[in-house]
Amino acid sequence: MTKQERATRTRDALISSAAREFERHGYALATLSAISSGAGVSPGALHFHFENKAAVACAVEDEACATLRRTARIVYGRRSNALQNLADTSHALARLLRDDVVVRAGFRLSCADDSRTELNLRQEWQSCVQQRLAEAADEGLLAAGTGRQQDLARMIVAATIGLEALCRDNDEWLSPRSVTSLWRTLLPMLADPGALDGLEPAGSPAVTGLVHAPVG
Amino acid sequence: MTKQERATRTRDALISSAAREFERHGYALATLSAISSGAGVSPGALHFHFENKAAVACAVEDEACATLRRTARIVYGRRSNALQNLADTSHALARLLRDDVVVRAGFRLSCADDSRTELNLRQEWQSCVQQRLAEAADEGLLAAGTGRQQDLARMIVAATIGLEALCRDNDEWLSPRSVTSLWRTLLPMLADPGALDGLEPAGSPAVTGLVHAPVG
Repeated sequence: MTKQERATRTRDALISSAAREFERHGYALATLSAISSGAGVSPGALHFHFENKAAVACAVEDEACATLRRTARIVYGRRSNALQNLADTSHALARLLRDDVVVRAGFRLSCADDSRTELNLRQEWQSCVQQRLAEAADEGLLAAGTGRQQDLARMIVAATIGLEALCRDNDEWLSPRSVTSLWRTLLPMLADPGALDGLEPAGSPAVTGLVHAPVG
Repeated sequence: MTKQERATRTRDALISSAAREFERHGYALATLSAISSGAGVSPGALHFHFENKAAVACAVEDEACATLRRTARIVYGRRSNALQNLADTSHALARLLRDDVVVRAGFRLSCADDSRTELNLRQEWQSCVQQRLAEAADEGLLAAGTGRQQDLARMIVAATIGLEALCRDNDEWLSPRSVTSLWRTLLPMLADPGALDGLEPAGSPAVTGLVHAPVG
């Protein structure tokens, strides 16, 4: 292992340890000494990579953002239609939020009032939902009389962000079963009856493997 | 003003000040000295009412819970049917979360991992949604083919809890317009067409006055 590889590995270990500490104690009470010892490195090694706690938190947010965006791009690359892609993307992001502590902690840091970055991953998700729904309308997938597209987008954003909030009590809310239940209820309300048969609330087969396997 | 009245007034001022501090800095960073000075009383007066910060936080949660439950009971007393009552209750609780800092801070404290009480107001709301939907089914208000009642309840809980989470970035998400938009989208999906005409997404007139006027 080169010196460069060792440094990258240490930095990744520090980011994971920080995410665990932020999740356990919140940003305010997390300490640099717990972060370095959780990563199995000395405080000096931490300071080689990060100036202070705010810098570690920025790195956690950046890493979460990169993972979520990369996954959304991969899922978009396998799209069949815009409504299915929206369901598929929500399944893939839910899996990351459930299984990856850096994504979870970074997502929450980015949404907090005292966030140290310009990122707000909740707002990015909202833009994604609005774009997919506009595409679904262009593709003739939305049922007549489903109301204004903006109202639909707000409802989908509220329901999916609600799953993330509820997951803080009970992580079953972000399980594949729970996300599938949401789309099983929403899709018949959103989709044109002619399009509905082709839509899979549990995620399309092209993406299911991705959803259940590690991404990276 | 009697001694008893003065004590009650001081206690209420301390609870409001604590709610503002918890909202501004989070529970972990809020200090007793900021809470007492925010209430315009001495640290000694605070200690007369509350042993420590945890005790103040419990009082904020209890007060929020009492206000939310009392309001839900009043709205229930004016019910016409179960679906309208669900929309009406969500409007009334959204108003409290938007306008009353004690309700907002207490709600969030009760949902936090490190909550100091047995209360979880998110779970209470979930039970309320489940009960109203079961009543709506008994009253024949739900459309045929809306899927399983449990899926519907989960979606409504997720969407409404999502509004509260999103409101932390932008309080427009809990505005009457936003809550109305949600029900304008949901009610045609939930309600039997025969029942839909009688349902008012903006809240029923019997409750609208209550929603826009102080409760207590």
